[in-house]
Amino acid sequence: MPGSPHDTSPSASGDTAPFTVNRLAAHIGGTVVGDGERRIRRCCGLESAGPDDISFVSNIKYLNQLTTTSAGCVVVDAKLDHQSIQRPASAPLTLIRAADPYFGFRQIMVLIHGMRPQPKPLVSPLCDIAASAKIGADCHIGPFVTIGENCVVGDRCVIYPGAKIMNGTELGSDCIIYPNAVIYDFCRLGKRVIVQSGAVIGCDGYGFATHQGIHHKIPQIGNVILGDDVEVGSNTVIERAAMESTVIGEGTKIGNNVVVGHNCQIGRHNLLVSQVGIAGSSSTGDYVVLAGQVGVAGHIHIGDRVRAAAQSGITSDIEPNRDIGGTPAMDFKLAKRVYLQIFQLPELAKRLRAVEAKLNATKSKEDAH
Amino acid sequence: MPGSPHDTSPSASGDTAPFTVNRLAAHIGGTVVGDGERRIRRCCGLESAGPDDISFVSNIKYLNQLTTTSAGCVVVDAKLDHQSIQRPASAPLTLIRAADPYFGFRQIMVLIHGMRPQPKPLVSPLCDIAASAKIGADCHIGPFVTIGENCVVGDRCVIYPGAKIMNGTELGSDCIIYPNAVIYDFCRLGKRVIVQSGAVIGCDGYGFATHQGIHHKIPQIGNVILGDDVEVGSNTVIERAAMESTVIGEGTKIGNNVVVGHNCQIGRHNLLVSQVGIAGSSSTGDYVVLAGQVGVAGHIHIGDRVRAAAQSGITSDIEPNRDIGGTPAMDFKLAKRVYLQIFQLPELAKRLRAVEAKLNATKSKEDAH
Amino acid sequence: MPGSPHDTSPSASGDTAPFTVNRLAAHIGGTVVGDGERRIRRCCGLESAGPDDISFVSNIKYLNQLTTTSAGCVVVDAKLDHQSIQRPASAPLTLIRAADPYFGFRQIMVLIHGMRPQPKPLVSPLCDIAASAKIGADCHIGPFVTIGENCVVGDRCVIYPGAKIMNGTELGSDCIIYPNAVIYDFCRLGKRVIVQSGAVIGCDGYGFATHQGIHHKIPQIGNVILGDDVEVGSNTVIERAAMESTVIGEGTKIGNNVVVGHNCQIGRHNLLVSQVGIAGSSSTGDYVVLAGQVGVAGHIHIGDRVRAAAQSGITSDIEPNRDIGGTPAMDFKLAKRVYLQIFQLPELAKRLRAVEAKLNATKSKEDAH
Repeated sequence: MPGSPHDTSPSASGDTAPFTVNRLAAHIGGTVVGDGERRIRRCCGLESAGPDDISFVSNIKYLNQLTTTSAGCVVVDAKLDHQSIQRPASAPLTLIRAADPYFGFRQIMVLIHGMRPQPKPLVSPLCDIAASAKIGADCHIGPFVTIGENCVVGDRCVIYPGAKIMNGTELGSDCIIYPNAVIYDFCRLGKRVIVQSGAVIGCDGYGFATHQGIHHKIPQIGNVILGDDVEVGSNTVIERAAMESTVIGEGTKIGNNVVVGHNCQIGRHNLLVSQVGIAGSSSTGDYVVLAGQVGVAGHIHIGDRVRAAAQSGITSDIEPNRDIGGTPAMDFKLAKRVYLQIFQLPELAKRLRAVEAKLNATKSKEDAH
Repeated sequence: MPGSPHDTSPSASGDTAPFTVNRLAAHIGGTVVGDGERRIRRCCGLESAGPDDISFVSNIKYLNQLTTTSAGCVVVDAKLDHQSIQRPASAPLTLIRAADPYFGFRQIMVLIHGMRPQPKPLVSPLCDIAASAKIGADCHIGPFVTIGENCVVGDRCVIYPGAKIMNGTELGSDCIIYPNAVIYDFCRLGKRVIVQSGAVIGCDGYGFATHQGIHHKIPQIGNVILGDDVEVGSNTVIERAAMESTVIGEGTKIGNNVVVGHNCQIGRHNLLVSQVGIAGSSSTGDYVVLAGQVGVAGHIHIGDRVRAAAQSGITSDIEPNRDIGGTPAMDFKLAKRVYLQIFQLPELAKRLRAVEAKLNATKSKEDAH
Repeated sequence: MPGSPHDTSPSASGDTAPFTVNRLAAHIGGTVVGDGERRIRRCCGLESAGPDDISFVSNIKYLNQLTTTSAGCVVVDAKLDHQSIQRPASAPLTLIRAADPYFGFRQIMVLIHGMRPQPKPLVSPLCDIAASAKIGADCHIGPFVTIGENCVVGDRCVIYPGAKIMNGTELGSDCIIYPNAVIYDFCRLGKRVIVQSGAVIGCDGYGFATHQGIHHKIPQIGNVILGDDVEVGSNTVIERAAMESTVIGEGTKIGNNVVVGHNCQIGRHNLLVSQVGIAGSSSTGDYVVLAGQVGVAGHIHIGDRVRAAAQSGITSDIEPNRDIGGTPAMDFKLAKRVYLQIFQLPELAKRLRAVEAKLNATKSKEDAH
């Protein structure tokens, strides 16, 4: 596997654009409607796409753009009634119908464009690597990187300029650490982990014991373990455990400016969207989705496949498979009704006053009898 | 224009403190009340200001401080009834009355203190610039900076120590990139863009296609475009587009720890305050103001001049010129009434129970007849 | 005081693990129940602890784990009725009863494990220190650090790789600045200040004067002052004052991704948890606690010992000693009742409709008479 990690880029596949629509459809197991011999050079958004471009419809809001798009080809859901699309006869639309159009389009993006090309294996003379550190084969280590004592860096890792890896930390093979990210001491990263710029893994947990008016710092002797295929967004912070490990399960993807508190146990294949905050010692099952700005209290458990709407405040354990929203987080359908009702609150209060007035009037009348 | 970018500092203007009150008033087109010959050396807050200092009143909460301040001069709104200010005869107050006192005071700050003096043109021998990069005239490039292949850096840019600029990125003239900021590959910055420390521009968008239980990373082949005079706060993250460009319009100012998702189209002269989060593919018009911690859902549009109160959750399109607040965001005046009513909820419930009890009692009485 | 700052580690105390339970109990003034001669090597969480480990019970949720733990010793509250713990006779539990078990356990962690060992005094040949900067005795300054003109660094400071300190900034003795943190110009740090990775101290405040459609940057000529024993979390941002100083009082501990706006005056011994945001010119008394994601409006004061629940939105002055929650923040007990009631809103509306219908029916009946 020469070249760079996670890469199934054009050069890797040996094949380069343009590709015919037929070739792209075959690549994703889709069916062509229209001109299968049309040649495609580029992936592009539906609104800007031209005749050499392929696009897709992800969001139902954009379906009506199919009547006007100039895209050379569009990937659509096989279930879409494409014959209902109104197009001028002079501008027929070429489609690829796919069972999973979003994933199919992703496969086409990888085929045509590939992932970011990574720099060639090289250890910059301007980095600072401890003599005791072990660096795997075919790594790229950029200038102004530091790698501490006894670190282990797996094969084919790419460590961009200015990233800092403190003593005793180990990276699996094919990791990518972007510029100026920091990984503290004694952490463990699995294979194919991606850490975006400015992320901080394994800093001290927020642990203080207050005694006689002083907040005494508690030694944070644990570490952080990131499973295989974890991605950590820019400027996200994952605190090390006070004792033992803060764990992020394999395949979990974390957005930007997220905070994961010390001793959290995050399950596998979670999606933690930007600005989520999870307090210490909480845990999640597998396939949990926390949308943007969700807050999670400490010492609670969120079950498998729970999905929380943006800005939810989760303050207690949540059973598996639930969709939740609001603060404090409640059933998502209830939350929608509740937040609809909130608009009505002043009206509700007014109506209650009217009812009370009526009742009092009735009472007065009765008393008068 | 020797010296540093955006600088109209004392040395640039050729003029240095002290300045007379008359001189300062003339500089901002204001009118003097009191001792116009008094000499001013420094700008200072109203509470701490002494006889050599000039201050201003921005917030109505602080108006009463005018009766006690020791400031040598205060810039006030020309509409203020200054004769009503109670002062001892022995300590008369010198004022500059200005049509726009906040901007006027800003002009005085620039005259007396200037912007931060920027370092002299110099390329540090300790930085790492690709041979193919083009660096403009009179740039300062600090130690431990990296600039990638084919980058273009405009004239008079200042790139502070540890900032990282990846391949193919272009900066207009007079940009200032503070320490340890990171700009990913192929981004475009306009003129006079300021990027504060730790900000990350153009990292991968949060894009995954989930297929058979795996979140497959979607190539993020787009970039970020920042218009002229954009400022990006510390540790803010602006994701690159999956395809095409994430755009920040000219003159827009972004606070700290903000996240702008991939493919967002932010208008001109917006104010995005700290910790705002905007999900992918959303857009704003011009002069939009989002206060602190506001969250914006994906794929929505916020019209020109919309202003959203802090912590609002914006989940659908917003028409131009509206002031909004709350979650989900509603008309600001309604939000104020709603959130006032929220306090009353337990009371409301109690009153409803009382009404129900009364009605039941009446019913029972009627039944008893 | 050789060795590293804030360190009362094993080597510092001259004493190393294992320690007998009796020795540990004496160290914290606790009382032993069970086998005082048992030897302890490590601190560990209750669930994973083995016979060589000491653990503690912090959270009442975990009390029942005492019946099953394999820990060699557990620190508990002296008030706990330990005789009620059900254990098999073959596995008696050894306890240390302590008046303040959390602080006691912290003391034991420090004794057994110490704080993170800091690197030896050394100035890396790969850093860039201005000739005019003054570096104290026994400092460690890592590679790719920059220290600007006229900076003063106190004795025994540790400045990790990639940290940047701009012109004129002063650090007291025994500070620890972690990798890639940035401290802007002319700031003042007290003694024993800890700045975690990626934190930014003293960047420009978010200050713009809007005039004729342009947001004009206001010079930010103030600085940031951090008191003794302040800790600043990863990727947190503390803006410099427009004029004068943004101040963080001694002993205050700040979490990750927090934003403190310009000119804030934060009191002593505050706890500002991760993702808190405080707008400009606000102030807090001493011992204030703001839980995760709390937002504070500008120009308000929060009194001594106020505690705000997570995600609260604080929009006006708060008197001392209050516990608050919700948005806008209200008395915490009221907030609990209000947020309980919110779930009932749709039900409440339905009941009100029923009442109205009944009343109308009664009315109709009366009218029919």
